[in-house]
Amino acid sequence: MRIYGDSISGNCLKVKWVADHLGLAYDWMETGVLGGETRAPSFLALNPAGQVPVVVLSDGRPLAQSNAIIFHLAEGSPLIPADAYDRARMLEWMFWEQYSHEPYIAVARFHVKYLGKPVADLEPKLVERGHAALARMEQALAGGGFLVGDAASLADVALAAYTRMAGDGGFDLSAYPAVAAWITRVEAALNIRD
Amino acid sequence: MRIYGDSISGNCLKVKWVADHLGLAYDWMETGVLGGETRAPSFLALNPAGQVPVVVLSDGRPLAQSNAIIFHLAEGSPLIPADAYDRARMLEWMFWEQYSHEPYIAVARFHVKYLGKPVADLEPKLVERGHAALARMEQALAGGGFLVGDAASLADVALAAYTRMAGDGGFDLSAYPAVAAWITRVEAALNIRD
Repeated sequence: MRIYGDSISGNCLKVKWVADHLGLAYDWMETGVLGGETRAPSFLALNPAGQVPVVVLSDGRPLAQSNAIIFHLAEGSPLIPADAYDRARMLEWMFWEQYSHEPYIAVARFHVKYLGKPVADLEPKLVERGHAALARMEQALAGGGFLVGDAASLADVALAAYTRMAGDGGFDLSAYPAVAAWITRVEAALNIRD
Repeated sequence: MRIYGDSISGNCLKVKWVADHLGLAYDWMETGVLGGETRAPSFLALNPAGQVPVVVLSDGRPLAQSNAIIFHLAEGSPLIPADAYDRARMLEWMFWEQYSHEPYIAVARFHVKYLGKPVADLEPKLVERGHAALARMEQALAGGGFLVGDAASLADVALAAYTRMAGDGGFDLSAYPAVAAWITRVEAALNIRD
């Protein structure tokens, strides 16, 4: 399997973490977003959407969208709950992540860390919605544990990716202690270091 | 089962179409977004994210996020491909829909049809990205058929919801003939009329 990803991207790290956790063999193909490599014709042939991550499975078939990729890699593993309702709740968090979390938390980080914009110049709506996402997670995690059920699932993988980097975009996680404690638990459960 | 939804929302119609197609019994609980009903405490108790649709299953447990809901309702049905790779491709389209299609096609429609903004006043980036989404679908559907495999799947449900209303936001589907023909096929396959 080949994983095309940019190491600065939380979406790409999700795929690496799941592959490492499950002991899957892969070649990491570093693909720079900032350098325009995702717009090259050879890359667009793999993913017409021009986004990383993309995996090319051992039979040569490509697959894109971080959360679809990790769902595929983890099918049959404990990272996907066996109970149908818990599995649906896991997907609920994963769709929420892409719609209501990543566009604010990850985009703020990108603007500040990679485009050099001061935190004070971020669009107020972006900051407000990022805090709303973190507040919702704080509420869900107030009792400890993981997002769904008693063990780490793909919901935790998907949400941890950019939440643990939220500070890069000016979001102070000390205001969200349940979220901060959950990050430590997820990192330990999945052996995340990078 | 109760479905809390706003009839003007394509995300909510996805759930109705799948429930109707599968012959599932439900009570439709009309929940107006414009009237602020999704911000009422009783609704936030069902979905702290304050978004429709939400279903309350027959055992009383709630589930949110349109694409997670339809995945749950359709588990074990032909709307989800039995092949693992096809299932992952279906999810790829569903995550892409929420990240790269809905925020442009549905948001443009909302601004024009429900907030009264002239099409000419839409943010250029919104229009550009909406057209990029439609162009990607046109490319994928150029050969006819459905988005994944030989039959309608949840990928078609998720993408049809707002694509068939794209004209409301000023996107002329006559420029995307393969997409327009696919909409007719999806509507026929799922018996969609509303």
